[in-house]
Amino acid sequence: MEFLKQLLGLSGVSGDESLVSDWLIKQILQRMGSWKVCPKIYSGEDFHDAILLKFGEPRTAVFAHIDTIGFMVRYNNQLIPIGGPEFIEGTKLVGKDSLGEIRCKLAGTEDAMFYDFPRAIERGTRLTFEQNIRISSGFIQAAYLDNRLGIYNAFRLCENLENGWVVFSTYEEHGGGSMPFLLKFIQETAPIKQALISDITWITEGIEHHQGVVISLRDKFIPRKKFLDRVLALADQSKIPYQLEVEAYGGSDGREVQFSPYAIDWCFIGAAEDHVHSPDEKVSLADLDAMISMYEYLMKEL
Amino acid sequence: MEFLKQLLGLSGVSGDESLVSDWLIKQILQRMGSWKVCPKIYSGEDFHDAILLKFGEPRTAVFAHIDTIGFMVRYNNQLIPIGGPEFIEGTKLVGKDSLGEIRCKLAGTEDAMFYDFPRAIERGTRLTFEQNIRISSGFIQAAYLDNRLGIYNAFRLCENLENGWVVFSTYEEHGGGSMPFLLKFIQETAPIKQALISDITWITEGIEHHQGVVISLRDKFIPRKKFLDRVLALADQSKIPYQLEVEAYGGSDGREVQFSPYAIDWCFIGAAEDHVHSPDEKVSLADLDAMISMYEYLMKEL
Amino acid sequence: MEFLKQLLGLSGVSGDESLVSDWLIKQILQRMGSWKVCPKIYSGEDFHDAILLKFGEPRTAVFAHIDTIGFMVRYNNQLIPIGGPEFIEGTKLVGKDSLGEIRCKLAGTEDAMFYDFPRAIERGTRLTFEQNIRISSGFIQAAYLDNRLGIYNAFRLCENLENGWVVFSTYEEHGGGSMPFLLKFIQETAPIKQALISDITWITEGIEHHQGVVISLRDKFIPRKKFLDRVLALADQSKIPYQLEVEAYGGSDGREVQFSPYAIDWCFIGAAEDHVHSPDEKVSLADLDAMISMYEYLMKEL
Repeated sequence: MEFLKQLLGLSGVSGDESLVSDWLIKQILQRMGSWKVCPKIYSGEDFHDAILLKFGEPRTAVFAHIDTIGFMVRYNNQLIPIGGPEFIEGTKLVGKDSLGEIRCKLAGTEDAMFYDFPRAIERGTRLTFEQNIRISSGFIQAAYLDNRLGIYNAFRLCENLENGWVVFSTYEEHGGGSMPFLLKFIQETAPIKQALISDITWITEGIEHHQGVVISLRDKFIPRKKFLDRVLALADQSKIPYQLEVEAYGGSDGREVQFSPYAIDWCFIGAAEDHVHSPDEKVSLADLDAMISMYEYLMKEL
Repeated sequence: MEFLKQLLGLSGVSGDESLVSDWLIKQILQRMGSWKVCPKIYSGEDFHDAILLKFGEPRTAVFAHIDTIGFMVRYNNQLIPIGGPEFIEGTKLVGKDSLGEIRCKLAGTEDAMFYDFPRAIERGTRLTFEQNIRISSGFIQAAYLDNRLGIYNAFRLCENLENGWVVFSTYEEHGGGSMPFLLKFIQETAPIKQALISDITWITEGIEHHQGVVISLRDKFIPRKKFLDRVLALADQSKIPYQLEVEAYGGSDGREVQFSPYAIDWCFIGAAEDHVHSPDEKVSLADLDAMISMYEYLMKEL
Repeated sequence: MEFLKQLLGLSGVSGDESLVSDWLIKQILQRMGSWKVCPKIYSGEDFHDAILLKFGEPRTAVFAHIDTIGFMVRYNNQLIPIGGPEFIEGTKLVGKDSLGEIRCKLAGTEDAMFYDFPRAIERGTRLTFEQNIRISSGFIQAAYLDNRLGIYNAFRLCENLENGWVVFSTYEEHGGGSMPFLLKFIQETAPIKQALISDITWITEGIEHHQGVVISLRDKFIPRKKFLDRVLALADQSKIPYQLEVEAYGGSDGREVQFSPYAIDWCFIGAAEDHVHSPDEKVSLADLDAMISMYEYLMKEL
C-alpha cells in the first residue's frame, strides 16, 4: 500500500508522464530481484515516457496507462481540460510554473472553466486535483484511482508472472498515441495475440461495489466474441468474483489494440469506481483484490 | 440465388462474424474448383474471422465486409446498438443465450431501446433483425442486404477473376478494425495500389433505383481525383449503367484504406438501397447486376 | 514573393492536389541548384501527390500540407464542404467541369449551401474561393494563406538546410490520410525523432498580429512536454519573437504524427491569421518572417 500511496501522490497528466515513468523505473529496479522471473526492461527516449517489461515467452500483454486527466492554463485565467475531468466548482487544483508552486480553486462553468489564484499562471501550465487519500470501511477513495490502481495491479502481477508483457502506456486519457508504437515494438520483439487492459471502469445501474472485478463485454468498441468466450470460461473456472459490463460509451487502450495493424484480441478487465474523474474516485478494496487475482489467473491460463 | 438466401439467413453482427466466416470458407472450398483461377486462401485465427483470397498477380483488392449491424443486451431489458440500426418500434429481433432461442420485439425510443420478452436475456447477448426475404418486381428486399449483396458480388467476381485480392473483412459497421491488419498482410504478401469497396449505399435525392451501380465520388471521405478519373473513364468505356454519388456523410472500409500507412487509392462501388439499416432494405436487381458486371470489368481493366 | 503569388493562384482542394504537386516539383528542380545542400527527391505515383525532400542526415522532419479547403458540387445546385470552409453568402467561387470554366456565387445557409450559376454544374466538381491577393501595411491577405504560407516557409527553409526532411503532405484539411504512408517511408528511409508542423494558426484572444511566430503548446492534441521544453529553450535562445498558443480545438498533421506507430515528438509552429478559412485570410508579414527565421534556427539546433 505504501507503493500505491506514493504513486497516488505523483502528478502526470497526459503528455507529461516523465515523473511517473522515472518513479516506476526506480520501483522496478528495486523490486525485480524478488520477482519469480526477471523481466527485460525497455524504456528511455526511444519509448518516450512508456515502459515495457517482457517476462519469459509472452502470449498476452497487459496494458496499464500511467497518465491522468487534468487541466491546462490558457489565457485570461482560463483552463481547458486534459482528458475529461469532472467540473466541480471549488475543487482544489495544484501545479507549478516558473514563478513557483500553485494551489488554486476551480471556478466558472463546465464550458468556461477558470482558476482562482492571486496571480496569473503561465500559459501551458498543467494543473491536477489536489490529492486526498482515504482508506476505510472496505474502500479506497482518492483522485486518480483511474489509473493508479491499474498500474498497481500490473505491478503486483509482476511478482509471480512467468510469461507475458507488462506495459505502462501514456496519453490514454487524451486520445491515445503511445499504443501504436508500443504494439509495433511488441509485435517485432516478442509478438502476442491477446491483450488485457488493466484500467478502472464505472459503477452503473448494472455494476456494483463489492461484486467483483468487472469484465467488460463492450464499451464504445466491441472485443471479438470468440475471445470473450474464452476469457469468461476461464473466469468461471477461477471462482474469483466478477461482474459483466455492457456499455455503449467509453474507451481504453483496447481501442488502439482493435485498430492496430495486428490481429490481437483484447478485453478490458478492472475494478469499478464511482465519482469518476473527480478528486473522490472510490473503489472497493475487495474488487481490487479480485482484479489482482483475476489477472494472475488469466495470465497463467490464457 | 440459393447462395444469397442462405447467406441472408446467417447472423453475424460486428465482433461475432465466425458463423459467416465458417460458412464462406465452406462455400469457397466447394466452388473454387469451377473458378477460372484457383486462389490462395488465407484464413483462420491469424486473421480472426476475416478471409483473404489471392488470385494470380493482384493489382487491385476488392473488400466486402461480412459483419452486420444489430443490438446487444445491457441491463434491465435495455438494448444498445451495434453499428447504427434503424429504430422502428415493434421490429422483431432474434438471438440466443444459454437459456435458449430468443424471438422478441424492439421497444422504447431511439435513445433508450428495450426488448420485450417474457424473461430476462443474458448480458451481452447479440440480437439481429428477424430475416424476411422478398424477391419480386425487379427488387430484392430483406434485412442485411448491406452487406450480404457486397459479399455476393465479391463471390460472383471470383468465378472469372484472374488477378486480384478478394477480401472479406469484419467489424466495418462498428468503426472497423480488421482492415489495418488485412492491408498490412496484403502489402507484405502481394501488394496493391488500388482498392474497390464492394458495399451497399443509399437511395437519395440524387441516386435512384434501376439507374445502375453507384460509383461514389465521396462520402465523409474523399478518394483521390486522379484515381476516380481513371475509374470513371473505364466505367464509360464499359457501357454498364452507373450513377455518381456525392455525399457529405457515411463511411466504408475505404476510410481505413485512406488512413492506412500505404499509398493505396480506393473507390466505393455498389448498388443503392432504401430503408437502410432496417429489416426492409430494398435493392433493384438490375442495379445488383450492374454492380456485378462493373466489378468484372474494372478488375480486368484497372 | 513571385513564388508565393503563383502558388496562391493554384487550386488544389484535398484529394485533388496534383496541380500544386506538379508545380512544386518544377520549382524544386529549377531552384535546387542554388541550395546549400542538394536534396534527394521522392515523388510520383508511389507517393500519390505528396513530395518528400531529404537533406543530408535528417534528425527532424518539417511537414507542410499542400491541400486547401473548398466545396464539391452535389445534386440540385447543392454544395458540400471539403474541409471546413467559412460560409459567407455571396462569396465568389471558381472551378471547371467538362462544359467549361465556372465562376459562381455561394448561396443558401451554412447547413444547406448552394451555388448560384446559370447552368447545372457536374456532380463532383470541385470549387474554390476566387483568389484576391492584397499586400499592404505589413499584412498579406488572400484566400488559402493556410497553408500556402506553410509551403512557402518550407520552401525558403530548403535554401540553407543541411540536415532534415522537408515534406509536402496532402489531405490535411479533410481528415488526413497521406501522413501515415509518408511517416512509414521516412522511418524506413532515414528515420527521425522530431517533427515540426509548418502550418498557419488562428488569431485569438491570446494570439495577436505582429507578436511573432506562434509555438503551439496544444490544440485538440497535446505534444509531449519534454519536447516542448526543448523547443521553447531554443526559441528563447534564438531571440526571434514568438507567442505561445494554448487551444482546446483544432488539429494538424501533428495529430497523425502523434497517432503513428513511431515515437516521434511533434510541435506546431506557424504564423497566425484571422478570417480563417475565408477568402480574406490575413497574416502579418513580420510574423511570417519570424516563422521563417524560427524554422531555420530550430532545424539547425534541434
